[in-house]
Amino acid sequence: MSKVFASLGMSLDGFIAGPGARPGNPLGDGGTRIHEWVYDVETWRARQNVEGGRAEQDDDVVRENFDRSGAYVMGRRMFAEGEVGWPDPPPFRAPVFVLTHTPREPWVRQGGTTFAFVTDGIHSALDQARKAAAGKDVQISGGAETVRQFIEAGLLDELQIHLAPLVLGAGVRLFDGVSPALGLEPARVVASPRVTHLTYLLTAPRA
Amino acid sequence: MSKVFASLGMSLDGFIAGPGARPGNPLGDGGTRIHEWVYDVETWRARQNVEGGRAEQDDDVVRENFDRSGAYVMGRRMFAEGEVGWPDPPPFRAPVFVLTHTPREPWVRQGGTTFAFVTDGIHSALDQARKAAAGKDVQISGGAETVRQFIEAGLLDELQIHLAPLVLGAGVRLFDGVSPALGLEPARVVASPRVTHLTYLLTAPRA
Repeated sequence: MSKVFASLGMSLDGFIAGPGARPGNPLGDGGTRIHEWVYDVETWRARQNVEGGRAEQDDDVVRENFDRSGAYVMGRRMFAEGEVGWPDPPPFRAPVFVLTHTPREPWVRQGGTTFAFVTDGIHSALDQARKAAAGKDVQISGGAETVRQFIEAGLLDELQIHLAPLVLGAGVRLFDGVSPALGLEPARVVASPRVTHLTYLLTAPRA
Repeated sequence: MSKVFASLGMSLDGFIAGPGARPGNPLGDGGTRIHEWVYDVETWRARQNVEGGRAEQDDDVVRENFDRSGAYVMGRRMFAEGEVGWPDPPPFRAPVFVLTHTPREPWVRQGGTTFAFVTDGIHSALDQARKAAAGKDVQISGGAETVRQFIEAGLLDELQIHLAPLVLGAGVRLFDGVSPALGLEPARVVASPRVTHLTYLLTAPRA
């Protein structure tokens, strides 16, 4: 059975974006610090159509995540940001299902990425993504609100946190509003000098 | 040169105690969940004068920390809680310097633990602890406010976080009020099925 997973960068004090996150500045003030480790990683750069970069542990983690993802589910706001920012071909190279309230024809882009727009909720988006993934895993791309919806609905199997060694002090917290009953089981840790990659399996809620 | 370090349990959403922390309930509601991994660890139990328990990775981490600590510095509130709760002999088996505003004669207990009361601030407490440690490291025991004071004064060399796989939702946050300029360098990760032990070196603040 294919898995449903999310992969998010987080500061040591729990933020996935800085303060003042808004259209045009989706990571908020200082929020790019959370992702600094990835920008010079080889696989990440290749997916941005840029050569070179670091290999090693961080690259392994990024490559594994791209390789295992047969389809993506994405929130409307994240799509709106990426729509104007992603290069051509975009980094996904697989079907992407965008949660929205506004019907729109699929948008076929180069390199295997097709954006399909889903107006009937997360269960429908996940069903469509699972079929499109054809046995591979489904990645919930974000943003945080979308990932939280999948957690709350019990639809997420695995949560990957790339824990950045920094304090952000303010911004958007990943776990705001998530129930303390959430069951998390440490499954894997990959450590590098720049970031700690933590993988948790989501289990039945604690009684 | 001996190091100054702190070792704290933290939930994945950044809490070191639950809501409602107060005298008699220092970890707050649900806060003991953060430390669940340690209560059945062999070295921890031995220091509580109880036999048996788990060995393995978690035990190695606990034993290392006790072994390297030649002296401790502790906040007034943590001492007040422990004063009535620690067994005899208490777990430290080394000199403990308690930050307080109320002068008091040293309190000599069994097994090598002496509580000395320091009324002239953290620099003085650290100087005394360094001397008493005689080349071993100094552990800042807590609570969070005391650890933050040492971080802010640039006196902490190393921060160890035992990251518990759970969401607490509310309570006392370790990094509340800590400057985003704090420099942290991942130094070591020890993973177990119950908790992830993260060690950071504190470096010069970011410009």
